[in-house]
Amino acid sequence: MATYTQPVQALIDELGRLPGIGPKSAQRVAFHLLKAPGDDVARLAHAITDAKARVRFCSRCFNFAEGELCPICLDDRRSSQILCVVEESRDIVALEKTGEFHGRYHVLLGAMSPLEGIGPEQLKMKELFIRLGPEDVQEVILCTNPNTEGEVTALYIARMLKPFDVKVTRIASGLPVGGDLEYADELTLGRAMEGRREMSS
Amino acid sequence: MATYTQPVQALIDELGRLPGIGPKSAQRVAFHLLKAPGDDVARLAHAITDAKARVRFCSRCFNFAEGELCPICLDDRRSSQILCVVEESRDIVALEKTGEFHGRYHVLLGAMSPLEGIGPEQLKMKELFIRLGPEDVQEVILCTNPNTEGEVTALYIARMLKPFDVKVTRIASGLPVGGDLEYADELTLGRAMEGRREMSS
Repeated sequence: MATYTQPVQALIDELGRLPGIGPKSAQRVAFHLLKAPGDDVARLAHAITDAKARVRFCSRCFNFAEGELCPICLDDRRSSQILCVVEESRDIVALEKTGEFHGRYHVLLGAMSPLEGIGPEQLKMKELFIRLGPEDVQEVILCTNPNTEGEVTALYIARMLKPFDVKVTRIASGLPVGGDLEYADELTLGRAMEGRREMSS
Repeated sequence: MATYTQPVQALIDELGRLPGIGPKSAQRVAFHLLKAPGDDVARLAHAITDAKARVRFCSRCFNFAEGELCPICLDDRRSSQILCVVEESRDIVALEKTGEFHGRYHVLLGAMSPLEGIGPEQLKMKELFIRLGPEDVQEVILCTNPNTEGEVTALYIARMLKPFDVKVTRIASGLPVGGDLEYADELTLGRAMEGRREMSS
């Protein structure tokens, strides 16, 4: 008697498998759904199946796409000569918001992490290298996250790209704009010093 | 271009409406689902619709039920003379785990909260009072949470029950078993002092 009826327990279990949702949180969400209007719940279930059915990965860059190619790859105003390598589609959204980049992307769908058993084979790495020639890529900007996994991944790609006739750059690390030097962690501060630039006056 | 394709955005939006799931968390879960095997995602969507379709509230105590009555109300070994009032079904699960209670429950489906506009009418309060006579209830144990909303709710029920010939008790507040006096907050400690009992030696 100390558990829920089967459909409730099944729902809690399924919700608990989602990332960042612990048992307490899964229970809370399940109870919310059971109390919520049927229409709201149907909308959620539909959003899940609909997204899963309609969304796939762009066959060129592995961004989310509804067709064969993603909207960015379909946009012929975007230069194919500059390629920005990111870990996830969400990074593309962040970068697009800056309005600073007009090339194409390549989504690795993760970062290398020996501890989690994620090596180059688990990522869209091979797919990156075979794009260079056909798309006439001149510069690869490595925009993986500035953490251990992201750095390792960037280093690996940089090494692999050495034999290719292509410029390889890494996105800058440093103090966040509007940030306070006092509150910056020492790693960031070290990077900010290392990456200092001469001021043109 | 700074947003996701429609089905992805719809999924993030729907997930973000769930309690305790912020925009970042919704995005994370959405990305997880889009990358996860189709079977896993189908299982989640099915768990949601299945629970919603099969689970309803017990017509007597408002616990989760698959039929007209919940398993506890259906169990005729449980005494109808002691009624334990809780806020949510999850509280029943917690209390059942103690194995200490053999009466029936009444789920209010929430607690009174003037700030959120939740009064007695928004809860299963009327449904509680009409159970007392037919079920020959001798004692009502108020097991609402020991926080402001729960206390107000307990106080309200205690007052409403005064005219009835029924014993009304409140679950004890005090130090958690295995807890440390030093780390108890002052309210809990105050309650623990107030609720002290004579030791039989």
